Amino acid sequence: VQTGTHDLPTAAAEALAAMRATAPLVQCLTNIVVAQWTANVLLAVGAAPAMVDNPREAGELAGVAGGVLVNLGTPYAETVEAMQLASAAANAAGRPWVLDPVGAGAMAWRTDVARTLLARTPPAIVRGNASEILALAGGSGGRGVDSAHTPQAAAGAARELAAEHGTVVAVSGAVDHLTDGTRLITVANGDVLLTKVTGVGCALGAMMAAFAAVCEDRLLAAVAATATLTVAAEQAAWTAPGPGSFAVGLLDRLASITPDDLRGAARVDVVG
Amino acid sequence: VQTGTHDLPTAAAEALAAMRATAPLVQCLTNIVVAQWTANVLLAVGAAPAMVDNPREAGELAGVAGGVLVNLGTPYAETVEAMQLASAAANAAGRPWVLDPVGAGAMAWRTDVARTLLARTPPAIVRGNASEILALAGGSGGRGVDSAHTPQAAAGAARELAAEHGTVVAVSGAVDHLTDGTRLITVANGDVLLTKVTGVGCALGAMMAAFAAVCEDRLLAAVAATATLTVAAEQAAWTAPGPGSFAVGLLDRLASITPDDLRGAARVDVVG
Amino acid sequence: VQTGTHDLPTAAAEALAAMRATAPLVQCLTNIVVAQWTANVLLAVGAAPAMVDNPREAGELAGVAGGVLVNLGTPYAETVEAMQLASAAANAAGRPWVLDPVGAGAMAWRTDVARTLLARTPPAIVRGNASEILALAGGSGGRGVDSAHTPQAAAGAARELAAEHGTVVAVSGAVDHLTDGTRLITVANGDVLLTKVTGVGCALGAMMAAFAAVCEDRLLAAVAATATLTVAAEQAAWTAPGPGSFAVGLLDRLASITPDDLRGAARVDVVG
Repeated sequence: VQTGTHDLPTAAAEALAAMRATAPLVQCLTNIVVAQWTANVLLAVGAAPAMVDNPREAGELAGVAGGVLVNLGTPYAETVEAMQLASAAANAAGRPWVLDPVGAGAMAWRTDVARTLLARTPPAIVRGNASEILALAGGSGGRGVDSAHTPQAAAGAARELAAEHGTVVAVSGAVDHLTDGTRLITVANGDVLLTKVTGVGCALGAMMAAFAAVCEDRLLAAVAATATLTVAAEQAAWTAPGPGSFAVGLLDRLASITPDDLRGAARVDVVG
Repeated sequence: VQTGTHDLPTAAAEALAAMRATAPLVQCLTNIVVAQWTANVLLAVGAAPAMVDNPREAGELAGVAGGVLVNLGTPYAETVEAMQLASAAANAAGRPWVLDPVGAGAMAWRTDVARTLLARTPPAIVRGNASEILALAGGSGGRGVDSAHTPQAAAGAARELAAEHGTVVAVSGAVDHLTDGTRLITVANGDVLLTKVTGVGCALGAMMAAFAAVCEDRLLAAVAATATLTVAAEQAAWTAPGPGSFAVGLLDRLASITPDDLRGAARVDVVG
Repeated sequence: VQTGTHDLPTAAAEALAAMRATAPLVQCLTNIVVAQWTANVLLAVGAAPAMVDNPREAGELAGVAGGVLVNLGTPYAETVEAMQLASAAANAAGRPWVLDPVGAGAMAWRTDVARTLLARTPPAIVRGNASEILALAGGSGGRGVDSAHTPQAAAGAARELAAEHGTVVAVSGAVDHLTDGTRLITVANGDVLLTKVTGVGCALGAMMAAFAAVCEDRLLAAVAATATLTVAAEQAAWTAPGPGSFAVGLLDRLASITPDDLRGAARVDVVG
């Protein structure tokens, strides 16, 4: 999928259709909190998840996966070793991998792990909240996994980080800001219930790895993943009485959302 | 929040309002089975979960968290080391931490880990089923994670355990029994469907850590958490055709339950 | 429960009734993706799960559990050691254990772990998809955790594998094929939504361990577990708008399905 002459919602819709047609294998090295949810999100949207995060196998699979997610939510000695091996193997094989630096800035070890991954084996996409992105860019972090900053406030730092490492940086929030160091794109879909379910951001990182498997343009991949998740979230929020029902409905909607739904509802703008 | 001149349901309602107003950061060192569920319960009820359970970061976060949960459901060498560091850091910083000795009495290692934590870095609250509390108090344990004893049968042992370690002990069951070694309080809400969803007790321990972040009176914190969970469970059980729907509805109800709902429905009694 | 003179659906129904009556303790050494889901499936169907997978305790519990599940979805150094200890302890104590070789054939380490377990401490039942069973039997594997082969194509290899190791082999798929090396039985229930929820196969392995705790005939245990899960899935699929709702409804149906439902709806055939 290439943006080419298409507008972004159309390109995102074509990316969704391509993923449904090809069901890319997405390897996830993620945390114990969201592993099931992430796998179910990937299955719903049309990808094939493989949650392989031990050092004996992580590099072996990353060399053949369509895309790889590395998420630092609950790092351990063994899984961090696996993440280093998987990111190196993905880069060596030309497979896109996504870094989700959960909690960067709030705790020292994972901040160091994230910065080392970024410097040694640059990812195709970095996805985080504003505090995490600011922390990777050298600023002060938040108090944990939630964000004390708005995506807009982190847009400048995101652009610099993207340019420095030759990657795409996606800053999640009420309005998502995504940049490849040159272009800056916003996605303005979503619902406040997204903040009441754990692992939505983590699942978005995994979806970016899935879309990157079918989109040469990694900024488009990140935009398409964001729009798909947040438009489906709007659909799910229509009828959900609370966060439990919303999470269930979001899986239903990720499975049923059509490329036409996405094209019609995505509020994507090029802002810089 | 202080009990003061208020009756207990009113004090519990005020504690719930205080948690919603302040969204305390609750660090959870818990098991792989219930990590997602626990985070979603905490988000629903108004707290901010951070599931940090590795030894490089656990103490760092525990020193600044509003409350800390240590749950022994699936202990590993690395996470047990993290638990020891987190409990010590929490006590050093004056932060309340909650011990949930899942399976104590049924397996030797975790029983020893739980007793060591209790002796070296006493928690603000211990929450378990009757078999687990009896095991910590020196009695014989159960056959696993479910309980072969009633809370009433463990009330005496709970009171002694609480007095010995200067902690609150909460014995979960059909009627919950909670004590600080002096007072003994029962909470008689809930539904049998609670026994058909994994991790309800584990989530209750996490809620106690959240309430302890906003209640100086730790017995009140444990009572308020228990009443909030079990009243929401009664609401959820009204319409649930089975345990899957019940778990979803429980999250919805934890998000929507008001302090007035809680004050009106909580069946809390001081029995000794 | 013995098949004896009964037809298989009747024998499966009696096995379900026996499990509900006795609530066997089922120890699960499983992966971080499906641990919660597996525990909830076991609770729904009437068993008592205990997710104990560390090497200090795994053998201790396996010697007294009704049945044991070993699932290789996310193996780590520590949990693989626990799996070896649990399988040995289960066999020494005469307790049935089930091997679920997730991803065998797709990655080298776990394939070796599965083959070693099979050779040194043969399980009562091996459950996998066609690619995994072919890989254990010496053939080429799939690309990950999903299967590139049909159960029918693996039936011959399954029969040889069962005969060689004195075990039952269950090949999951659109039509499940199960064999003890002599008899070959098919179960033709289910719904395509089962492929859109992570961990359904993993939960089926756990259900086989639960049924093996109440069925001397291990082929019947595997058939009864398969029929119970897939008939409940058909019931859940009637009303589910998507995979999120389907997973919730499946738990509801596993709790409500009666032995009579199972006897009436199970499409079980002896085909060889």
